[in-house]
Amino acid sequence: MAPAASLPAVTTLLTRYNAIRRATTHFCAPLSPEDLMVQSCPEASPVKWHLAHTTWFFETFVLREHVAAYKPFHPDFYWLFNSYYNSLGDMPEKKLRASFSRPPLDAILRYRAHVDAAIDRFLQQPVVEPAIQRITLGLHHEQQHQELIATDIKHAFFTNPLHPAYLEAPQSKNEAIAPPLEWSSFSPGLTQIGLATDPAGIYAFAFDNETPRHPVYIAPFALANRLVTCSEYLAFIDQNGYERPELWLSEGWTTMRAEGWHAPLYWQRDSNTKSGWRIYTLHGFQPLEHISETPVCHLSYFEADAYARWTAHRLPTEFEWEYAATHSVPAGGTQANLLESGNLHPISASHAPGLQQLFGDTWEWTQSGYTGYPGYKPLPGALGEYNGKFMSSQVVLRGGSCVTPATHIRPTYRNFFAPATRWQFSGLRLAKDLSR
Amino acid sequence: MAPAASLPAVTTLLTRYNAIRRATTHFCAPLSPEDLMVQSCPEASPVKWHLAHTTWFFETFVLREHVAAYKPFHPDFYWLFNSYYNSLGDMPEKKLRASFSRPPLDAILRYRAHVDAAIDRFLQQPVVEPAIQRITLGLHHEQQHQELIATDIKHAFFTNPLHPAYLEAPQSKNEAIAPPLEWSSFSPGLTQIGLATDPAGIYAFAFDNETPRHPVYIAPFALANRLVTCSEYLAFIDQNGYERPELWLSEGWTTMRAEGWHAPLYWQRDSNTKSGWRIYTLHGFQPLEHISETPVCHLSYFEADAYARWTAHRLPTEFEWEYAATHSVPAGGTQANLLESGNLHPISASHAPGLQQLFGDTWEWTQSGYTGYPGYKPLPGALGEYNGKFMSSQVVLRGGSCVTPATHIRPTYRNFFAPATRWQFSGLRLAKDLSR
Amino acid sequence: MAPAASLPAVTTLLTRYNAIRRATTHFCAPLSPEDLMVQSCPEASPVKWHLAHTTWFFETFVLREHVAAYKPFHPDFYWLFNSYYNSLGDMPEKKLRASFSRPPLDAILRYRAHVDAAIDRFLQQPVVEPAIQRITLGLHHEQQHQELIATDIKHAFFTNPLHPAYLEAPQSKNEAIAPPLEWSSFSPGLTQIGLATDPAGIYAFAFDNETPRHPVYIAPFALANRLVTCSEYLAFIDQNGYERPELWLSEGWTTMRAEGWHAPLYWQRDSNTKSGWRIYTLHGFQPLEHISETPVCHLSYFEADAYARWTAHRLPTEFEWEYAATHSVPAGGTQANLLESGNLHPISASHAPGLQQLFGDTWEWTQSGYTGYPGYKPLPGALGEYNGKFMSSQVVLRGGSCVTPATHIRPTYRNFFAPATRWQFSGLRLAKDLSR
Amino acid sequence: MAPAASLPAVTTLLTRYNAIRRATTHFCAPLSPEDLMVQSCPEASPVKWHLAHTTWFFETFVLREHVAAYKPFHPDFYWLFNSYYNSLGDMPEKKLRASFSRPPLDAILRYRAHVDAAIDRFLQQPVVEPAIQRITLGLHHEQQHQELIATDIKHAFFTNPLHPAYLEAPQSKNEAIAPPLEWSSFSPGLTQIGLATDPAGIYAFAFDNETPRHPVYIAPFALANRLVTCSEYLAFIDQNGYERPELWLSEGWTTMRAEGWHAPLYWQRDSNTKSGWRIYTLHGFQPLEHISETPVCHLSYFEADAYARWTAHRLPTEFEWEYAATHSVPAGGTQANLLESGNLHPISASHAPGLQQLFGDTWEWTQSGYTGYPGYKPLPGALGEYNGKFMSSQVVLRGGSCVTPATHIRPTYRNFFAPATRWQFSGLRLAKDLSR
Repeated sequence: MAPAASLPAVTTLLTRYNAIRRATTHFCAPLSPEDLMVQSCPEASPVKWHLAHTTWFFETFVLREHVAAYKPFHPDFYWLFNSYYNSLGDMPEKKLRASFSRPPLDAILRYRAHVDAAIDRFLQQPVVEPAIQRITLGLHHEQQHQELIATDIKHAFFTNPLHPAYLEAPQSKNEAIAPPLEWSSFSPGLTQIGLATDPAGIYAFAFDNETPRHPVYIAPFALANRLVTCSEYLAFIDQNGYERPELWLSEGWTTMRAEGWHAPLYWQRDSNTKSGWRIYTLHGFQPLEHISETPVCHLSYFEADAYARWTAHRLPTEFEWEYAATHSVPAGGTQANLLESGNLHPISASHAPGLQQLFGDTWEWTQSGYTGYPGYKPLPGALGEYNGKFMSSQVVLRGGSCVTPATHIRPTYRNFFAPATRWQFSGLRLAKDLSR
Repeated sequence: MAPAASLPAVTTLLTRYNAIRRATTHFCAPLSPEDLMVQSCPEASPVKWHLAHTTWFFETFVLREHVAAYKPFHPDFYWLFNSYYNSLGDMPEKKLRASFSRPPLDAILRYRAHVDAAIDRFLQQPVVEPAIQRITLGLHHEQQHQELIATDIKHAFFTNPLHPAYLEAPQSKNEAIAPPLEWSSFSPGLTQIGLATDPAGIYAFAFDNETPRHPVYIAPFALANRLVTCSEYLAFIDQNGYERPELWLSEGWTTMRAEGWHAPLYWQRDSNTKSGWRIYTLHGFQPLEHISETPVCHLSYFEADAYARWTAHRLPTEFEWEYAATHSVPAGGTQANLLESGNLHPISASHAPGLQQLFGDTWEWTQSGYTGYPGYKPLPGALGEYNGKFMSSQVVLRGGSCVTPATHIRPTYRNFFAPATRWQFSGLRLAKDLSR
Repeated sequence: MAPAASLPAVTTLLTRYNAIRRATTHFCAPLSPEDLMVQSCPEASPVKWHLAHTTWFFETFVLREHVAAYKPFHPDFYWLFNSYYNSLGDMPEKKLRASFSRPPLDAILRYRAHVDAAIDRFLQQPVVEPAIQRITLGLHHEQQHQELIATDIKHAFFTNPLHPAYLEAPQSKNEAIAPPLEWSSFSPGLTQIGLATDPAGIYAFAFDNETPRHPVYIAPFALANRLVTCSEYLAFIDQNGYERPELWLSEGWTTMRAEGWHAPLYWQRDSNTKSGWRIYTLHGFQPLEHISETPVCHLSYFEADAYARWTAHRLPTEFEWEYAATHSVPAGGTQANLLESGNLHPISASHAPGLQQLFGDTWEWTQSGYTGYPGYKPLPGALGEYNGKFMSSQVVLRGGSCVTPATHIRPTYRNFFAPATRWQFSGLRLAKDLSR
Repeated sequence: MAPAASLPAVTTLLTRYNAIRRATTHFCAPLSPEDLMVQSCPEASPVKWHLAHTTWFFETFVLREHVAAYKPFHPDFYWLFNSYYNSLGDMPEKKLRASFSRPPLDAILRYRAHVDAAIDRFLQQPVVEPAIQRITLGLHHEQQHQELIATDIKHAFFTNPLHPAYLEAPQSKNEAIAPPLEWSSFSPGLTQIGLATDPAGIYAFAFDNETPRHPVYIAPFALANRLVTCSEYLAFIDQNGYERPELWLSEGWTTMRAEGWHAPLYWQRDSNTKSGWRIYTLHGFQPLEHISETPVCHLSYFEADAYARWTAHRLPTEFEWEYAATHSVPAGGTQANLLESGNLHPISASHAPGLQQLFGDTWEWTQSGYTGYPGYKPLPGALGEYNGKFMSSQVVLRGGSCVTPATHIRPTYRNFFAPATRWQFSGLRLAKDLSR
């Protein structure tokens, strides 16, 4: 079940480096230099910036620190493509990234080639363990930005009044019927949460926020076998879910009214479809009825929470989710719908027994606030800003989405966003208490 | 140690009702009808509104539901003084409360008398248990608003350019030296958190968010024996704590810069004092040097967290705090500095052994996000909106403050505010991990 | 026709001082200290502040400058009740005025008595001309604030969810039918605009912005005989005036949509009235059908302009208005509906020939931006800030309203507000070009 | 002196069409498709949008209306590239223009070619007068956008943290000393303002807002012989001009403080220059001392007005300016610094006698609010929205700037911007009253 298992054990770091770096530019192939300029919401960045910043990460944290003779590509790039590492000095305001017509894309691609060549030379020789760890971190960082490139260009194209598709080829009509909702039960007890510090395990890498491994007591609970579907969510809308304050958190109600939300992001009323709705995807608009059995996504935490309350259930905690993901192996294995599947959108769940869609399709909102585990220590130095400084007012999501790279996700992975966030592929799985 | 223990067992509900209701108006004695009109920040309400809304609570949830013959004081008050209970219908926007010059204070006082008389008549007869529970809830609600009246009038008077004092009599110069910081250690293990559902326990009342009682595993930790003092916090300021991004959560850094914070709320530079600072209190401005050994308060979560990081320690979790408050009885008892002490400001900690200042002085920011306990069920009906709908983007505080009524606080009590909140008496106690 | 003409020539300055000062407090008689605290929109101030600030004006500009032995009432009042005179030093932010529960009303009334007594003593003796001019200016300033007290308390009571009336006694139903709209024509030519500097004229006083008198060329034009009525404006609403962008200035369209305007301020849909509308007045809500023939008021410039365009006419320039007001004397005199009439609301126009309602009822929006006349010189010193510094982004209104004191208005009087302003009694009179 | 005079009388409309259209794309030659995407402030648009919108203007107002067989380039462009003509239907929000990565630049250039070819075919045949007028209007519209392209790309490149230059070749150091400030006096009297409706005059074209020609009385005044220089403005800064409220309009003071202005837009402190300042130009940053004798530009109205008050003078009215521009011919002619000069920045004034720099260099703020002339009639239909709907809260500027095309400017030309606008080349010329 573990997504990383498909990676052959013989893969060397350099092979992985080249594969992952190439995957980034490969994803950008259908995009023009103009497309790479768009920044359509405060959460997003222009794709060109992602291409530069991921390169900056290797230059700053690997080459500048571990390669004495390394000559930086351009002196200004050190501050220009810093995202949020205050320890390294000032950086441009995020909202200015759309003004970076210069350096041109061509220069950014040469920057990538320059850094790639330096990494290649570096890895031809014996390399110390800390450098290997940094490169590994950089590759996971690159994969996070691969996902962001997908979600940011989706938002950019949706914002464009012509609503172009990322890939014109339409998603094959997904008419598979989702399996009925069933519950998997879990017994109470103390469990270990977080990655073991022993790197010999199957998941050799983890972010600092997945550690230290520590005991958590879990009460008896049950999880739904699959994600909530568009068709199920439509019933919530049709039964006035967005008009009933008693279903919403106070902050959610206020936010939803202020923002004018009446449906998930990317849903639009459309009298030309049978369902009366169309949904924007990376393949362009689809009639809701063509994808009604696929998982609903682009929900805020508030919408996921309100939907769960409407069904008289709740969202799982991140510990429940991790416990289930670690202890329930679906019979016969599963084929997760991750970035490499090429679907670029959630698909209907399998009718196989056990928990489906734990990985891929959509990130799953949990009810857990994002904080440090007991004994949590950020990485030393500037990299300590990677995760730790965001531990307030955010909510944990688990499991990855249809644009998460397969080698990037794992049961202990903690994603986190502010509860009003909707531009990620975020959906939900229901949970409920069991009597003790 | 439990603050409520001083309440004689013979107290009847009506006696408590009358005492608590009287305490509210007694606190307002130094205030004029004009003072009661001021609403000086979005978090606060005019005191007159508090006087009306607490009365509305008894009328709405006790008299209208349990007294068939009850005649409401005024038909409009049902919606006019509703705070946030959407289930009961629409209500005026919070920011409009400062426009309520009508009804006049005189009418509000008659409203209070009308409802008090009805409760008095009601309690002369045998009363069903649900009504008793509602009245009890209403009294704890009233006590919450007593605390809010104190914090809101403090903010109102501070906002007034003349900075009047609530009570002119200056706080006696508090020159007691705080004890040195020492650590109390706690062993790891499973502990029970939250109030037992059995109401026969010492704390017969709890809000729904304190239940259900449930097991939590706690890693080894230590807590500081007292709250952080003004003098300690001043060192943080003097050593550029507000200029060092690495000490701050990202959201905290952004908020602090946007708001222009350079010190706790109510601190002002003052070249006429020895310390160079003065601090506004309910007794007017005090030179910092007169109260430097008292606990620092009116901190946001971000400031508390940054201070803790600066000391290489951290904030406790709410579970650690509750565990400590339940299991460590200071030798010889303690005299908590709560509302009834009349200090209206934190005072220096005692030099007695053990944990001091657990109750009173200042609310203690924990690092725990505010969520429902496993199996949490809000009260049925409109009262389900009392606590449950605020379970997002807020942080738990524990222990009560110098303006919390003594019979209102208990070890399981969970207060909660958004992390940028500063107008409450909020301070901090340091915690640290112990090796396992 | 000149409103001031009714003032007997024998009136002494002290008599006028006492009368005008008393008129201010007389207007406040129906109001409680709590009412005087409300500040319900950024344009308005609490009435108590008006009572203090007008007193401050005499203290600051007359007593402190001309009475050597004058002892100020309170040292802080000098900065506390400064409105916007930067030359005199810093002052509290306008929005903080609602926090001035202290000084209490009682102190403000003693402040008024203190200053009044000092002025009385001062005027018992021979007084130099500059001091007389300052007192005269102060009285006109006081009258401006009398008007503001009326408009500010109207807004305050409207904002109060209970919508109390300033005076419960309802306005007598005004069922007089407005005369048909007729046009008065004016020939082209050079005319003199502004007050003659010779103070021996009928209007001995003018603000600096009414000077210097200067020639202006006026093209042939015609003015409507009366103000636009509620019933006429209702037709504009009913025929989708608020939905047709071609009728609106671009800034007006944007503002109107952003603010959600669908009718004049104080108009509300009301299915219980015959017309479907009710209008809030200082006497409480009135069904529109009871006052449909009275002038429409509480319009922004944008609404007045859009209405005029809808009728294929336009607003007059301030010069056309002044020319007409100076040169067309209605036969048989006119009785203007000003503050002293006690109506506190516009009334229907007379059927007499000639231009009606030039003075009183509603301020008339002109199409003239507010700038200095050629050769304009502000008063020297801090009083230069009285008018001159507002000469940008504002529009001139002429003629006074139903809450303007009779001795305050004159043909050369220039009022000015930002074009989005609606809380004043502002209406319109149509104008049109005549062929040359 | 009239700039248009250099246009040979033999120029045919098609020749002019081709020349002006080519000038637009010629200006864009140094820019990349990515540069054309940037929208760095709410006032600006991406250059690519300008290229499309100017083409849309010809398609919409000429080809669709006058060429029966015309086939639009793309059906969506009709609404996609509408700027603000509500009469033609809805259009995208202005702030979304930066999301138009599609249509790509290539498509926009084909759109231009498509429309140009259609105009070419159309003009090969006899054409009715209304169509000629529309094409002429379209060419003036195109020239307005040529100026906007220059100012928008200047702002875009300034916003880019690398601050690239539009043209790397540095402006030749402009060390010519500006002539001393001298005054030209003008006698009072009635003058005719605005363009004669007779199109046989020297300026055959005018916007509707320059008509009708009408008499205005002008009091005796004097105008400075040249624009205010950087060096003069620096003295205003050095003598605390931005710290003295008495020099500022109230709205200006508030705006300036809220925006944090301490100098004109594009001025930055720079300790590496002799003057301590550097100024961003289309040729990159220049030390202030290299261009200190050139006219100061990128001032808001508020700064221009405050500077004038500091010198004890004032800004001219638009009528004074037009009167002077019409009646004072500099001896020996003048060479205006307009777009065709290629300077792309103001240059020092000539030492010739008479009024210098009336045309070109910088737009000159007047003190006149932007309103319709007496008898003003907007063009019929959607083109009535071109100018008329902006007649509120804007101020008139006169004379063109260093990026205004030579055939676009004339003595009656009225430009207009909100008083806080700074991204245009806006400066000032002093005026003063003369005694009568």
